[in-house]
Amino acid sequence: MTKTISLTPIGYVRSSRTDPIDDNWDSVESWIELDPALFQADACQGLDAFSHIEVVYYFHRVEDPEIVQGARHPRGRSDWPKVGIFAQRAKGRPNRLGVTAAKLVGVEGLSIVVHGLDAIDGTPVLDIKPCMRSFLPRGEVIEPTWATELMQNYW
Amino acid sequence: MTKTISLTPIGYVRSSRTDPIDDNWDSVESWIELDPALFQADACQGLDAFSHIEVVYYFHRVEDPEIVQGARHPRGRSDWPKVGIFAQRAKGRPNRLGVTAAKLVGVEGLSIVVHGLDAIDGTPVLDIKPCMRSFLPRGEVIEPTWATELMQNYW
Repeated sequence: MTKTISLTPIGYVRSSRTDPIDDNWDSVESWIELDPALFQADACQGLDAFSHIEVVYYFHRVEDPEIVQGARHPRGRSDWPKVGIFAQRAKGRPNRLGVTAAKLVGVEGLSIVVHGLDAIDGTPVLDIKPCMRSFLPRGEVIEPTWATELMQNYW
Repeated sequence: MTKTISLTPIGYVRSSRTDPIDDNWDSVESWIELDPALFQADACQGLDAFSHIEVVYYFHRVEDPEIVQGARHPRGRSDWPKVGIFAQRAKGRPNRLGVTAAKLVGVEGLSIVVHGLDAIDGTPVLDIKPCMRSFLPRGEVIEPTWATELMQNYW
């Protein structure tokens, strides 16, 4: 059943941050340049009516040996529980996919300026979706203590 | 710059809904079966400490001609504005990626029971991430009227 799925980057992240660092992503200015060879000029028409976008991207700098198929301590912190790779958002994950809701600053044609995107310069972008209120988690979002602690300085 | 990225499904959706229908997804019971050939038994360890998971999946039933590279009326409704494919969450999109926050009902090994996953039976799953409070959109989520109207009966 595990046949391969081939995706084509829709564009790339341009960012002042060129190296993966765990924290302080809100200090980063970045934008997404969609590939004009792939899309019509109106592919982002009306996007600016939304306050946030969901960016699906590819952790292109992660090497095969870094990918975890089982469990690990988040950030190698043994004071945090060992949890499965699908119970954390670490980049060393199967398929190397990142998903982040970023604040939309502006759209100009196929160029999208965002705030708070945790992706480095050159990151391939696979999809952009508008954040809709109905697509937020329905009901209270509960998380374990380690997750709250890990995210303390992330943004 | 547009080199292809190859992904392998981590598992598949098992659902009572076998055909793509736009609305009433909350009436659907479903679970995700991760591929035991790819992952260790503890790949989901600790996931049950979260109330919701983010599921990244592939709209495998969408044919090439259905994919929009520019703008269209959401659901073909001419009373709604014509917006770019990246300003809507329609399945006929480049790379066919879906991202949904579903309520986590339970985890048993590599089998994950969810509520409110808008994916049909047999859908390839590409990633699962825990919903963390800090990864929700920061600040008020603003959306246009058409989006609120479109989502009225979705769940």
